[in-house]
Amino acid sequence: MAPVAAATRWRLLLVLSAAGLGAVGAPKPPNILLLLMDDMGWGDLGVYGEPSRETPNLDQMAAEGMLFPNFYSANPLCSPSRAALLTGRLPIRSGFYTTNGHARNAYTPQEIVGGVPDEEHLLPELLKGAGYASKIVGKWHLGHRPQFHPLKHGFDEWFGSPNCHFGPYDNRARPNIPVYRDWEMVGRYYEEFPINLKTGEANLTQMYLQEALDFMKRQQAAQRPFFLYWAIDATHAPVYASRPFLGTSRRGRYGDAVREIDDSVGKIMRLLRDLRITENTFVFFTSDNGAALISAPKQGGSNGPFLCGKQTTFEGGMREPAIAWWPGKIPAGQVSHQLGSIMDLFTTSLSLAGLAPPSDRVIDGLDLLPAMLWGQLTDRPIFYYRGNTLMAVTLGQYKAHFWTWTNSWEEFRQGVDFCPGQNVSGVTTHTQEEHTKLPLIFHLGRDPGERYPLSFASPEYLDALRRVTLVVRQHQKTLVPGQPQLNMCNQAVMVWTCWADGLKVPSGTDLLEPCGHSPASPVPVTVCVWHPAPQRWVIPVSQCQKLWLHPKTHRAPSGWRSPAFQLDGPSPRAARRPARWFGGQLSTSQLPRGVQPALRSQCGVGGVGVGGVCWEDRVGH
Amino acid sequence: MAPVAAATRWRLLLVLSAAGLGAVGAPKPPNILLLLMDDMGWGDLGVYGEPSRETPNLDQMAAEGMLFPNFYSANPLCSPSRAALLTGRLPIRSGFYTTNGHARNAYTPQEIVGGVPDEEHLLPELLKGAGYASKIVGKWHLGHRPQFHPLKHGFDEWFGSPNCHFGPYDNRARPNIPVYRDWEMVGRYYEEFPINLKTGEANLTQMYLQEALDFMKRQQAAQRPFFLYWAIDATHAPVYASRPFLGTSRRGRYGDAVREIDDSVGKIMRLLRDLRITENTFVFFTSDNGAALISAPKQGGSNGPFLCGKQTTFEGGMREPAIAWWPGKIPAGQVSHQLGSIMDLFTTSLSLAGLAPPSDRVIDGLDLLPAMLWGQLTDRPIFYYRGNTLMAVTLGQYKAHFWTWTNSWEEFRQGVDFCPGQNVSGVTTHTQEEHTKLPLIFHLGRDPGERYPLSFASPEYLDALRRVTLVVRQHQKTLVPGQPQLNMCNQAVMVWTCWADGLKVPSGTDLLEPCGHSPASPVPVTVCVWHPAPQRWVIPVSQCQKLWLHPKTHRAPSGWRSPAFQLDGPSPRAARRPARWFGGQLSTSQLPRGVQPALRSQCGVGGVGVGGVCWEDRVGH
Repeated sequence: MAPVAAATRWRLLLVLSAAGLGAVGAPKPPNILLLLMDDMGWGDLGVYGEPSRETPNLDQMAAEGMLFPNFYSANPLCSPSRAALLTGRLPIRSGFYTTNGHARNAYTPQEIVGGVPDEEHLLPELLKGAGYASKIVGKWHLGHRPQFHPLKHGFDEWFGSPNCHFGPYDNRARPNIPVYRDWEMVGRYYEEFPINLKTGEANLTQMYLQEALDFMKRQQAAQRPFFLYWAIDATHAPVYASRPFLGTSRRGRYGDAVREIDDSVGKIMRLLRDLRITENTFVFFTSDNGAALISAPKQGGSNGPFLCGKQTTFEGGMREPAIAWWPGKIPAGQVSHQLGSIMDLFTTSLSLAGLAPPSDRVIDGLDLLPAMLWGQLTDRPIFYYRGNTLMAVTLGQYKAHFWTWTNSWEEFRQGVDFCPGQNVSGVTTHTQEEHTKLPLIFHLGRDPGERYPLSFASPEYLDALRRVTLVVRQHQKTLVPGQPQLNMCNQAVMVWTCWADGLKVPSGTDLLEPCGHSPASPVPVTVCVWHPAPQRWVIPVSQCQKLWLHPKTHRAPSGWRSPAFQLDGPSPRAARRPARWFGGQLSTSQLPRGVQPALRSQCGVGGVGVGGVCWEDRVGH
Repeated sequence: MAPVAAATRWRLLLVLSAAGLGAVGAPKPPNILLLLMDDMGWGDLGVYGEPSRETPNLDQMAAEGMLFPNFYSANPLCSPSRAALLTGRLPIRSGFYTTNGHARNAYTPQEIVGGVPDEEHLLPELLKGAGYASKIVGKWHLGHRPQFHPLKHGFDEWFGSPNCHFGPYDNRARPNIPVYRDWEMVGRYYEEFPINLKTGEANLTQMYLQEALDFMKRQQAAQRPFFLYWAIDATHAPVYASRPFLGTSRRGRYGDAVREIDDSVGKIMRLLRDLRITENTFVFFTSDNGAALISAPKQGGSNGPFLCGKQTTFEGGMREPAIAWWPGKIPAGQVSHQLGSIMDLFTTSLSLAGLAPPSDRVIDGLDLLPAMLWGQLTDRPIFYYRGNTLMAVTLGQYKAHFWTWTNSWEEFRQGVDFCPGQNVSGVTTHTQEEHTKLPLIFHLGRDPGERYPLSFASPEYLDALRRVTLVVRQHQKTLVPGQPQLNMCNQAVMVWTCWADGLKVPSGTDLLEPCGHSPASPVPVTVCVWHPAPQRWVIPVSQCQKLWLHPKTHRAPSGWRSPAFQLDGPSPRAARRPARWFGGQLSTSQLPRGVQPALRSQCGVGGVGVGGVCWEDRVGH
């Protein structure tokens, strides 16, 4: 990755100071607005060729801004991709991966106890140094336990949820996913925040829109530069839209969700105009990973001409729609062929704020301002990982696959298909095929669909291989993987998750390594109180009691007594009823290994959405 | 198909007369410029989502005009599609099909003796009634024998070729494909009009551009309304570009061709502006059929998110890029979801000229002006034929397949693949699968890639089936197929074509029906003179001698003598050498059945590109 030259940096500073001239007093850095979609595919916008063309506002944004047709996620799955955006680092560095199985994708479902390590510097944390007020609206997905809370990692405000809006769950065995306003849980999906799975109706995008508009107005009134991370999730299955949008799309329910998002983006852009801050606000639109073709056609999007989708390291899994918009700075109607990454949003945002990225660690994100402002192109690789396995790399127009895999035959035979209707012989394999010695190389310009590997004997192949090999060697030589955060190694947990609740076996379960040993030290547990009548946690999570379980038996220490909390839940209804321990309805076989039914039935993890005890998953890490 | 209401017609007349007010004297109807691409796919333009986005001029045209994302060819192959454009009628009506085999595609290679019947009224012929001057630049493909010549069917000028630019051929056994200026053959591909197969260099698009510019300037100077049919072929394999464009695309040689075309379109639009006739010129851009994926990735384009390509009746075979442009009349930056057809260009052009379509026959083309000018949508079906087999129909968002087939297993095993990397079980079949009783139905909005057939039991399926059935019954009840023009029934011809020249077996050959009987009457033959030294025909085709072969033996009548033509070929070089009969170098086994070596070696078909005798193929018709 070529560093930005000194001269470039100087020109940049000129632009940035010019951008701040409108403000009173000292130059104010530009506002930063990141619009991050969930499971939206490259082919979902009209400007990216979606045949129904139902995104006039986003298409307009592209016409007024710059399109990046070669922009990539850092992982084909949500949590690692979002961690990469906010840290500027590959998930392999920040720990957002698993060592549970070879090439196994992982994220943070409720059962995962890991999250963003304290040592990682997140973008909002760093932007504080330039006086930014930061808000996350929508999905966090960087860990759901208290220590991972977004407000502990630099955000000043949060409205949204730590997890996906899966559900509804059986509220006794497993609470629904909570929704937060800042530190407080203000309700749960399917309860205070209803999602009608039958009709697809939910008002969430409208709430997220309102949160965004309110925040921008307040910051503008306060003359504070803002960083708004709008991480909405209507296009993640189960997809939803509010009533005015339901049934309006030619594409069905998924299209309804896209239309509502497009309309919301239009309203956000209008507010920027009304506030007269367009020239001082940098906006970037992209998605966390490719469209989830497993949910298509009713609940999944489109990856356009690209191969496969979410969960895979083919282009359909990681190439994303991307639009940069900053009137008067970024020239209108341009296309940049810069290879871009979601991690670049970290570095570019810091650059906008006049800040340097941390120098004590490897930062993978590139500053895209030279590409955006002056059309400069920088050679850089795009790495495609699954877990800690480097599956592929793109360099220039060439993409080399070191491993090919979609999913296991077992999964595939059960109907889990990441590449519906697509089948490239020897490429979309259902066994993990190693090509590390002689990678499959594709020319993405001639063959964006990865259908025609170059001939191994061709001079073109040999030249591409030589260049790719140098870059990969350099990458691997210096790589220090972080402590894996997304391991799922307690078999009991998996049993509980996968079968007890009737869910599908998660991808790669068949490849899990055997679990590690039990820890030698006591296991910490946070005990909260679940109220069965209003069906919610009755105290703020921050006030949950902590105790330590026996390292082997996982039993509570013998003198421990149930905590006697006062009712102070968010709902007035809760206060009118006495707290009751939630009675044990589960059989022992459904419990995590070594956890007592009595304990499990009484306790829970704040915000995790799992009824019962939360245990620190030292096991197997 | 709903007729345009009287009120609409009246509004239309208002617009059209307003369009002509700028002209001196009587209102002049608008110029009509049809830009027809060859084998260009839906996904080949930036505005249609091509990732390299190398079509700024076409994208600009779309931004200033109207996009039709649901626009269809009338056939997945060139000749029938072009016949449909110029006649406004389905190829099944005009005879542009074959009965040689079930669902067999057919066009006009040099060996086919059929062409556009005299009874068909072609667009330029009808436009004469409104005073239009008409020119075709590029590929004709409606028959290569003299009676099918474009100037016999209404065009005033022609620069281009009757056939594809395949080759180079062995000039003794089979001459190269000729290039015409009006009535005169002015040379041949690979000779006077070189195409370098190794480098991909050819100057043809530049010539075709110049022809277009010159024609428009001349007509504007003469104040005559013009119809220009710009049917260029650089994106048909072997793809080519002129030197300044070679190597400039991120997409390889195919992309070079597209870039040159885009640049040429830009120059055409610029001339319209310079001539100040933008507001009086209707421009439409589209393609004859889907991208030829058999030629991908180096010589084939992209069908974006659609299934399969050229030769198939899946969306990739027949959905086309389409842009309408008429500043001041067609509103800018609009998208129309009208189901459009290449046949609509016939009816729409007549409407622009103030002419009614012929009323003595079925016209399938719809007048698109109401859609273009006022966003009006008209319900109409799109029929997908192969040969005389109705394979599928689209009605609204629903597409029903009555037959599914890509190509035969035999072809497929030889590497001929119309759907590379795609495989939809039970849909992309290599055997002809009948679904006439219970069609496979897809919802093209939710599922543009035709991957998820609706469940037969669903109310949605039953409702769509009911509506589709009505339309198909009505269509079939009134259908009167034309005399098939594209039959290839003389086994000797086929042997000659398919194997003698080392070509691949054409699609569907394995399904050919047995040939018909020999005719009872003498067979007419046109005898011309081939000059081996300048390697060209030495007299104009119109002066070829006609004689009649014996109906059984195909021998020349016994008193017949070789004609003694004077040299009057187009090249001065030709006149400096004495005419010699081209010596017979072929073995008898390579000749059409019953044709004498002596005859064959002396004679040829003007413009057909086949050395030897041309016989009227009454056999098997």
